[in-house]
Amino acid sequence: MNVKAIIPFKPIDPKTRLSSVLTKEEREEFAGTMLGDVISAVKSCGCSVTILATSEYKFEGVMVSVKDEGLNESVNAQLKNSKTPVLIIMSDLPLADKNSLTRLLSTEKDIGIVPGLGGGTNLIFVKYPEKYHVEYYGYSFAKHLKAAEDAGLSVEIIDSMRLSTDVDEPSDLAELLIHGKGKAREWLLSHGFELLVENGRLKVKRYGKAIL
Amino acid sequence: MNVKAIIPFKPIDPKTRLSSVLTKEEREEFAGTMLGDVISAVKSCGCSVTILATSEYKFEGVMVSVKDEGLNESVNAQLKNSKTPVLIIMSDLPLADKNSLTRLLSTEKDIGIVPGLGGGTNLIFVKYPEKYHVEYYGYSFAKHLKAAEDAGLSVEIIDSMRLSTDVDEPSDLAELLIHGKGKAREWLLSHGFELLVENGRLKVKRYGKAIL
Repeated sequence: MNVKAIIPFKPIDPKTRLSSVLTKEEREEFAGTMLGDVISAVKSCGCSVTILATSEYKFEGVMVSVKDEGLNESVNAQLKNSKTPVLIIMSDLPLADKNSLTRLLSTEKDIGIVPGLGGGTNLIFVKYPEKYHVEYYGYSFAKHLKAAEDAGLSVEIIDSMRLSTDVDEPSDLAELLIHGKGKAREWLLSHGFELLVENGRLKVKRYGKAIL
Repeated sequence: MNVKAIIPFKPIDPKTRLSSVLTKEEREEFAGTMLGDVISAVKSCGCSVTILATSEYKFEGVMVSVKDEGLNESVNAQLKNSKTPVLIIMSDLPLADKNSLTRLLSTEKDIGIVPGLGGGTNLIFVKYPEKYHVEYYGYSFAKHLKAAEDAGLSVEIIDSMRLSTDVDEPSDLAELLIHGKGKAREWLLSHGFELLVENGRLKVKRYGKAIL
Protein backbone atom coordinates (compact mmCIF):
# COMPACT_ATOMS: atom_id res chain seq x y z
CA MET A 1 0.00 0.00 0.00
CA ASN A 2 1.29 3.41 -0.97
CA VAL A 3 0.83 5.68 2.07
CA LYS A 4 1.67 9.35 2.15
CA ALA A 5 2.75 10.48 5.62
CA ILE A 6 2.18 14.13 6.47
CA ILE A 7 4.05 15.55 9.43
CA PRO A 8 3.05 19.05 10.57
CA PHE A 9 6.05 20.87 12.04
CA LYS A 10 6.77 24.25 13.59
CA PRO A 11 10.47 25.04 13.18
CA ILE A 12 10.51 28.34 15.10
CA ASP A 13 9.87 28.54 18.86
CA PRO A 14 8.24 25.09 19.14
CA LYS A 15 7.33 23.16 22.30
CA THR A 16 6.83 26.25 24.46
CA ARG A 17 5.59 24.11 27.36
CA LEU A 18 9.18 22.90 27.67
CA SER A 19 10.41 26.48 28.15
CA SER A 20 11.06 25.87 31.85
CA VAL A 21 13.72 23.27 31.01
CA LEU A 22 14.99 24.16 27.52
CA THR A 23 15.99 27.43 25.85
CA LYS A 24 14.37 28.45 22.58
CA GLU A 25 17.41 27.28 20.61
CA GLU A 26 17.41 23.97 22.47
CA ARG A 27 13.69 23.49 21.87
CA GLU A 28 14.19 24.06 18.15
CA GLU A 29 17.03 21.55 18.02
CA PHE A 30 15.17 19.01 20.18
CA ALA A 31 11.97 19.35 18.15
CA GLY A 32 13.96 18.74 14.96
CA THR A 33 15.53 15.65 16.55
CA MET A 34 12.11 14.27 17.53
CA LEU A 35 10.93 14.97 13.98
CA GLY A 36 13.89 12.94 12.71
CA ASP A 37 12.87 9.96 14.87
CA VAL A 38 9.31 10.20 13.57
CA ILE A 39 10.55 10.33 9.98
CA SER A 40 12.73 7.25 10.53
CA ALA A 41 9.81 5.32 12.02
CA VAL A 42 7.44 6.30 9.23
CA LYS A 43 10.01 5.47 6.54
CA SER A 44 10.60 2.06 8.14
CA CYS A 45 6.95 1.32 7.27
CA GLY A 46 7.50 2.29 3.64
CA CYS A 47 5.54 5.55 3.72
CA SER A 48 6.53 8.54 1.62
CA VAL A 49 7.01 11.64 3.78
CA THR A 50 6.04 15.28 3.50
CA ILE A 51 6.85 17.77 6.25
CA LEU A 52 4.19 20.44 6.48
CA ALA A 53 6.21 23.29 7.97
CA THR A 54 4.93 26.64 9.19
CA SER A 55 8.14 28.34 7.99
CA GLU A 56 11.26 27.58 5.89
CA TYR A 57 12.80 24.27 6.89
CA LYS A 58 15.17 21.72 5.41
CA PHE A 59 15.41 18.03 6.22
CA GLU A 60 17.71 15.90 4.10
CA GLY A 61 15.89 13.57 1.77
CA VAL A 62 12.42 14.73 2.78
CA MET A 63 10.00 16.96 0.92
CA VAL A 64 9.04 20.09 2.85
CA SER A 65 5.90 22.03 2.08
CA VAL A 66 5.84 25.47 3.70
CA LYS A 67 2.38 26.79 4.54
CA ASP A 68 1.87 29.93 6.53
CA GLU A 69 -1.63 28.97 7.67
CA GLY A 70 -3.33 27.08 10.48
CA LEU A 71 -2.78 23.39 11.15
CA ASN A 72 -6.31 22.41 10.14
CA GLU A 73 -6.25 24.44 6.94
CA SER A 74 -2.89 23.11 5.76
CA VAL A 75 -3.65 19.46 6.60
CA ASN A 76 -7.12 19.63 5.04
CA ALA A 77 -5.67 21.08 1.84
CA GLN A 78 -3.39 18.03 1.66
CA LEU A 79 -6.26 15.61 2.31
CA LYS A 80 -8.40 17.18 -0.38
CA ASN A 81 -5.75 16.57 -3.02
CA SER A 82 -4.74 13.04 -2.04
CA LYS A 83 -5.91 10.01 -3.96
CA THR A 84 -3.83 7.56 -1.92
CA PRO A 85 -4.12 6.75 1.82
CA VAL A 86 -2.71 9.40 4.14
CA LEU A 87 -1.09 9.14 7.55
CA ILE A 88 -1.11 12.35 9.58
CA ILE A 89 1.41 12.02 12.36
CA MET A 90 2.56 14.65 14.83
CA SER A 91 6.26 15.45 15.02
CA ASP A 92 6.50 15.11 18.82
CA LEU A 93 6.08 11.33 18.96
CA PRO A 94 9.63 10.07 19.37
CA LEU A 95 8.41 6.74 20.79
CA ALA A 96 6.67 5.86 17.51
CA ASP A 97 8.24 2.73 16.06
CA LYS A 98 7.70 0.26 13.26
CA ASN A 99 5.56 -2.14 15.33
CA SER A 100 3.15 0.46 16.62
CA LEU A 101 2.81 2.19 13.25
CA THR A 102 2.28 -1.14 11.52
CA ARG A 103 -0.66 -1.84 13.83
CA LEU A 104 -2.19 1.47 12.81
CA LEU A 105 -1.49 1.05 9.09
CA SER A 106 -2.91 -2.49 9.15
CA THR A 107 -6.38 -1.45 10.27
CA GLU A 108 -9.20 -3.03 8.32
CA LYS A 109 -11.37 0.01 8.96
CA ASP A 110 -11.45 3.13 6.78
CA ILE A 111 -9.70 5.17 9.46
CA GLY A 112 -7.26 4.33 12.24
CA ILE A 113 -6.87 6.90 14.98
CA VAL A 114 -4.63 7.25 18.02
CA PRO A 115 -5.57 9.62 20.84
CA GLY A 116 -3.02 11.67 22.72
CA LEU A 117 -3.20 12.31 26.44
CA GLY A 118 -5.88 14.80 27.42
CA GLY A 119 -8.25 14.28 24.49
CA GLY A 120 -5.92 15.25 21.66
CA THR A 121 -5.23 13.32 18.45
CA ASN A 122 -1.73 12.06 17.74
CA LEU A 123 -2.18 10.06 14.54
CA ILE A 124 -4.84 9.60 11.89
CA PHE A 125 -4.55 7.08 9.09
CA VAL A 126 -7.26 7.59 6.50
CA LYS A 127 -7.73 5.46 3.42
CA TYR A 128 -10.06 7.89 1.63
CA PRO A 129 -8.53 11.27 2.45
CA GLU A 130 -10.74 13.21 0.04
CA LYS A 131 -13.77 12.22 2.17
CA TYR A 132 -12.31 13.33 5.48
CA HIS A 133 -11.21 16.50 7.24
CA VAL A 134 -9.33 17.19 10.46
CA GLU A 135 -10.25 19.45 13.38
CA TYR A 136 -7.31 19.75 15.74
CA TYR A 137 -7.22 21.68 19.05
CA GLY A 138 -9.32 21.16 22.16
CA TYR A 139 -11.08 17.81 22.46
CA SER A 140 -9.98 16.86 18.95
CA PHE A 141 -10.19 13.10 19.55
CA ALA A 142 -13.97 13.34 19.93
CA LYS A 143 -14.20 15.72 16.95
CA HIS A 144 -12.25 13.30 14.76
CA LEU A 145 -14.48 10.38 15.72
CA LYS A 146 -17.53 12.49 14.93
CA ALA A 147 -16.08 13.62 11.57
CA ALA A 148 -15.58 9.97 10.61
CA GLU A 149 -19.14 9.10 11.58
CA ASP A 150 -20.48 12.08 9.64
CA ALA A 151 -18.51 10.98 6.58
CA GLY A 152 -19.75 7.39 6.89
CA LEU A 153 -16.20 6.10 7.45
CA SER A 154 -15.53 3.23 9.86
CA VAL A 155 -12.96 3.79 12.62
CA GLU A 156 -10.56 1.72 14.67
CA ILE A 157 -8.94 3.26 17.75
CA ILE A 158 -5.39 1.94 18.06
CA ASP A 159 -4.31 1.23 21.62
CA SER A 160 -0.63 2.17 21.84
CA MET A 161 1.27 3.81 24.65
CA ARG A 162 4.13 4.61 22.27
CA LEU A 163 1.85 6.46 19.86
CA SER A 164 -0.26 8.10 22.56
CA THR A 165 2.77 9.63 24.27
CA ASP A 166 3.38 13.06 22.81
CA VAL A 167 6.24 15.05 24.31
CA ASP A 168 4.76 18.33 25.47
CA GLU A 169 5.55 18.78 29.15
CA PRO A 170 8.69 18.25 31.19
CA SER A 171 7.11 15.11 32.71
CA ASP A 172 6.92 13.59 29.22
CA LEU A 173 10.72 13.68 29.03
CA ALA A 174 10.76 10.85 31.59
CA GLU A 175 8.83 8.62 29.18
CA LEU A 176 11.27 9.43 26.39
CA LEU A 177 14.26 8.66 28.61
CA ILE A 178 12.64 5.38 29.75
CA HIS A 179 11.23 4.07 26.48
CA GLY A 180 13.07 5.97 23.73
CA LYS A 181 15.19 4.08 21.23
CA GLY A 182 16.20 6.88 18.86
CA LYS A 183 18.06 10.13 18.56
CA ALA A 184 15.71 12.27 20.67
CA ARG A 185 16.60 10.22 23.74
CA GLU A 186 20.28 10.51 22.84
CA TRP A 187 19.86 14.26 22.48
CA LEU A 188 18.47 14.51 26.02
CA LEU A 189 21.30 12.39 27.42
CA SER A 190 23.95 14.45 25.62
CA HIS A 191 22.37 17.64 26.97
CA GLY A 192 22.63 16.72 30.62
CA PHE A 193 19.32 14.94 31.20
CA GLU A 194 19.22 11.72 33.18
CA LEU A 195 16.91 9.44 35.11
CA LEU A 196 17.68 9.01 38.79
CA VAL A 197 15.94 7.16 41.59
CA GLU A 198 15.78 9.24 44.75
CA ASN A 199 13.90 8.25 47.88
CA GLY A 200 12.34 5.41 45.94
CA ARG A 201 10.94 7.66 43.19
CA LEU A 202 12.14 8.05 39.62
CA LYS A 203 13.17 11.59 38.76
CA VAL A 204 14.43 13.44 35.72
CA LYS A 205 17.43 15.66 36.40
CA ARG A 206 19.43 17.98 34.23
CA TYR A 207 23.03 18.61 35.19
CA GLY A 208 22.17 17.25 38.63
CA LYS A 209 19.15 19.46 39.21
CA ALA A 210 15.67 17.91 39.43
CA ILE A 211 13.27 19.13 36.76
CA LEU A 212 10.33 17.07 38.05
CA MET B 1 -4.57 -21.69 29.26
CA ASN B 2 -5.41 -21.52 32.94
CA VAL B 3 -4.24 -18.13 34.22
CA LYS B 4 -4.46 -16.97 37.80
CA ALA B 5 -4.92 -13.22 38.05
CA ILE B 6 -3.65 -11.58 41.23
CA ILE B 7 -4.90 -8.07 42.00
CA PRO B 8 -3.21 -6.26 44.90
CA PHE B 9 -5.69 -3.92 46.60
CA LYS B 10 -5.65 -1.45 49.48
CA PRO B 11 -9.22 -1.05 50.81
CA ILE B 12 -8.47 1.62 53.44
CA ASP B 13 -7.34 5.15 52.52
CA PRO B 14 -6.27 4.29 48.95
CA LYS B 15 -5.30 6.66 46.12
CA THR B 16 -4.05 9.42 48.43
CA ARG B 17 -2.81 11.44 45.45
CA LEU B 18 -6.50 12.01 44.63
CA SER B 19 -7.07 13.59 48.07
CA SER B 20 -7.35 17.05 46.56
CA VAL B 21 -10.47 16.03 44.65
CA LEU B 22 -12.00 13.12 46.59
CA THR B 23 -12.66 12.52 50.29
CA LYS B 24 -11.30 9.40 51.98
CA GLU B 25 -14.72 7.70 51.76
CA GLU B 26 -15.02 8.64 48.09
CA ARG B 27 -11.54 7.35 47.34
CA GLU B 28 -12.39 4.03 48.97
CA GLU B 29 -15.59 3.71 46.94
CA PHE B 30 -13.92 4.85 43.73
CA ALA B 31 -10.97 2.47 44.22
CA GLY B 32 -13.43 -0.40 44.74
CA THR B 33 -15.25 0.59 41.55
CA MET B 34 -12.02 0.63 39.55
CA LEU B 35 -11.18 -2.78 41.04
CA GLY B 36 -14.56 -4.02 39.81
CA ASP B 37 -13.77 -2.89 36.26
CA VAL B 38 -10.40 -4.64 36.42
CA ILE B 39 -12.04 -7.83 37.68
CA SER B 40 -14.60 -7.73 34.84
CA ALA B 41 -11.87 -7.28 32.24
CA VAL B 42 -9.74 -10.07 33.65
CA LYS B 43 -12.71 -12.43 33.92
CA SER B 44 -13.65 -11.68 30.29
CA CYS B 45 -10.30 -13.27 29.38
CA GLY B 46 -11.13 -16.40 31.37
CA CYS B 47 -8.68 -15.82 34.22
CA SER B 48 -9.41 -16.91 37.76
CA VAL B 49 -9.12 -13.99 40.19
CA THR B 50 -7.61 -13.48 43.62
CA ILE B 51 -7.67 -10.10 45.34
CA LEU B 52 -4.61 -9.63 47.51
CA ALA B 53 -5.94 -7.16 50.06
CA THR B 54 -4.01 -5.34 52.76
CA SER B 55 -7.01 -5.53 55.10
CA GLU B 56 -10.45 -7.24 55.35
CA TYR B 57 -12.37 -6.87 52.10
CA LYS B 58 -15.28 -8.55 50.37
CA PHE B 59 -16.02 -8.68 46.65
CA GLU B 60 -18.87 -10.88 45.49
CA GLY B 61 -17.75 -13.99 43.68
CA VAL B 62 -14.03 -13.29 44.08
CA MET B 63 -11.53 -14.88 46.43
CA VAL B 64 -9.84 -12.40 48.76
CA SER B 65 -6.55 -13.16 50.44
CA VAL B 66 -5.74 -10.73 53.26
CA LYS B 67 -2.03 -10.15 53.85
CA ASP B 68 -0.79 -7.53 56.23
CA GLU B 69 2.61 -7.26 54.59
CA GLY B 70 4.34 -5.33 51.81
CA LEU B 71 3.26 -5.55 48.18
CA ASN B 72 6.43 -7.32 47.08
CA GLU B 73 6.31 -9.86 49.91
CA SER B 74 2.67 -10.79 49.37
CA VAL B 75 2.93 -11.04 45.56
CA ASN B 76 6.15 -13.02 45.74
CA ALA B 77 4.59 -15.48 48.17
CA GLN B 78 1.85 -16.06 45.59
CA LEU B 79 4.33 -16.51 42.74
CA LYS B 80 6.37 -19.02 44.72
CA ASN B 81 3.36 -21.27 45.19
CA SER B 82 1.91 -21.08 41.67
CA LYS B 83 2.35 -23.87 39.16
CA THR B 84 0.17 -22.21 36.52
CA PRO B 85 0.75 -18.90 34.70
CA VAL B 86 0.08 -15.78 36.77
CA LEU B 87 -1.12 -12.33 35.78
CA ILE B 88 -0.35 -9.57 38.28
CA ILE B 89 -2.53 -6.59 37.51
CA MET B 90 -2.94 -3.40 39.49
CA SER B 91 -6.41 -2.42 40.65
CA ASP B 92 -6.23 1.15 39.31
CA LEU B 93 -6.40 0.27 35.62
CA PRO B 94 -10.04 0.90 34.73
CA LEU B 95 -9.20 1.23 31.02
CA ALA B 96 -8.05 -2.41 30.87
CA ASP B 97 -10.25 -4.33 28.47
CA LYS B 98 -10.45 -7.72 26.81
CA ASN B 99 -8.50 -6.68 23.70
CA SER B 100 -5.57 -5.19 25.53
CA LEU B 101 -5.37 -8.03 28.07
CA THR B 102 -5.59 -10.61 25.29
CA ARG B 103 -2.56 -9.04 23.63
CA LEU B 104 -0.64 -9.44 26.89
CA LEU B 105 -1.84 -12.97 27.59
CA SER B 106 -1.02 -14.05 24.01
CA THR B 107 2.68 -13.27 24.29
CA GLU B 108 4.95 -15.98 22.95
CA LYS B 109 7.64 -14.95 25.42
CA ASP B 110 7.97 -16.25 28.98
CA ILE B 111 6.90 -12.90 30.41
CA GLY B 112 4.72 -10.08 29.15
CA ILE B 113 5.09 -6.75 30.90
CA VAL B 114 3.31 -3.40 30.66
CA PRO B 115 4.95 -0.25 32.04
CA GLY B 116 3.02 2.47 33.80
CA LEU B 117 3.75 6.15 33.36
CA GLY B 118 6.89 7.29 35.15
CA GLY B 119 8.77 3.98 35.15
CA GLY B 120 6.32 1.89 37.15
CA THR B 121 4.93 -1.53 36.27
CA ASN B 122 1.21 -1.98 35.68
CA LEU B 123 0.94 -5.62 34.61
CA ILE B 124 3.16 -8.68 34.57
CA PHE B 125 2.13 -11.93 32.97
CA VAL B 126 4.53 -14.72 33.84
CA LYS B 127 4.28 -18.27 32.57
CA TYR B 128 6.75 -19.73 35.09
CA PRO B 129 5.90 -17.85 38.28
CA GLU B 130 8.08 -20.00 40.52
CA LYS B 131 11.15 -18.73 38.62
CA TYR B 132 10.29 -15.05 38.98
CA HIS B 133 9.93 -12.39 41.63
CA VAL B 134 8.60 -8.84 41.64
CA GLU B 135 10.23 -5.64 42.88
CA TYR B 136 7.68 -2.84 42.88
CA TYR B 137 8.31 0.82 43.83
CA GLY B 138 10.65 3.33 42.22
CA TYR B 139 11.87 2.47 38.74
CA SER B 140 10.21 -0.93 38.92
CA PHE B 141 9.88 -1.35 35.14
CA ALA B 142 13.68 -1.54 34.81
CA LYS B 143 13.91 -3.81 37.87
CA HIS B 144 11.34 -6.18 36.40
CA LEU B 145 13.19 -6.38 33.06
CA LYS B 146 16.41 -7.09 34.94
CA ALA B 147 14.76 -9.76 37.10
CA ALA B 148 13.57 -11.53 33.95
CA GLU B 149 17.03 -11.39 32.42
CA ASP B 150 18.60 -12.70 35.62
CA ALA B 151 16.12 -15.60 35.65
CA GLY B 152 16.79 -16.42 31.99
CA LEU B 153 13.19 -15.63 31.05
CA SER B 154 12.36 -13.95 27.73
CA VAL B 155 10.26 -10.77 27.82
CA GLU B 156 7.82 -8.94 25.59
CA ILE B 157 6.86 -5.36 26.41
CA ILE B 158 3.21 -4.82 25.51
CA ASP B 159 2.48 -1.44 23.98
CA SER B 160 -0.95 -0.40 25.27
CA MET B 161 -2.21 3.02 26.28
CA ARG B 162 -5.17 1.40 28.05
CA LEU B 163 -2.94 -0.79 30.20
CA SER B 164 -0.27 1.86 30.77
CA THR B 165 -2.78 4.37 32.13
CA ASP B 166 -3.01 3.94 35.89
CA VAL B 167 -5.31 6.33 37.70
CA ASP B 168 -3.18 8.04 40.35
CA GLU B 169 -3.43 11.78 39.85
CA PRO B 170 -6.34 14.11 39.16
CA SER B 171 -5.11 14.51 35.57
CA ASP B 172 -5.60 10.76 35.06
CA LEU B 173 -9.33 11.21 35.66
CA ALA B 174 -9.51 12.94 32.27
CA GLU B 175 -8.27 9.78 30.57
CA LEU B 176 -10.87 7.71 32.41
CA LEU B 177 -13.65 10.10 31.42
CA ILE B 178 -12.47 10.11 27.80
CA HIS B 179 -11.69 6.43 27.27
CA GLY B 180 -13.52 4.59 30.06
CA LYS B 181 -16.20 2.05 29.20
CA GLY B 182 -17.05 0.67 32.63
CA LYS B 183 -18.36 1.51 36.05
CA ALA B 184 -15.47 3.68 37.23
CA ARG B 185 -16.29 6.22 34.53
CA GLU B 186 -19.96 6.04 35.50
CA TRP B 187 -18.98 6.58 39.14
CA LEU B 188 -17.16 9.80 38.22
CA LEU B 189 -20.09 11.05 36.16
CA SER B 190 -22.57 10.28 38.95
CA HIS B 191 -20.36 12.13 41.42
CA GLY B 192 -20.32 15.41 39.57
CA PHE B 193 -17.28 14.99 37.32
CA GLU B 194 -17.47 16.05 33.69
CA LEU B 195 -15.33 16.94 30.70
CA LEU B 196 -15.70 20.45 29.37
CA VAL B 197 -13.95 22.36 26.62
CA GLU B 198 -13.05 25.88 27.72
CA ASN B 199 -10.98 28.31 25.69
CA GLY B 200 -10.19 25.49 23.31
CA ARG B 201 -8.78 23.21 26.04
CA LEU B 202 -10.33 20.11 27.55
CA LYS B 203 -10.87 20.36 31.30
CA VAL B 204 -12.17 18.14 34.05
CA LYS B 205 -14.66 19.83 36.34
CA ARG B 206 -16.52 18.67 39.41
CA TYR B 207 -19.82 20.33 40.17
CA GLY B 208 -18.79 23.11 37.82
CA LYS B 209 -15.39 23.74 39.40
CA ALA B 210 -12.21 23.00 37.44
CA ILE B 211 -9.98 20.39 39.04
CA LEU B 212 -7.29 20.60 36.39
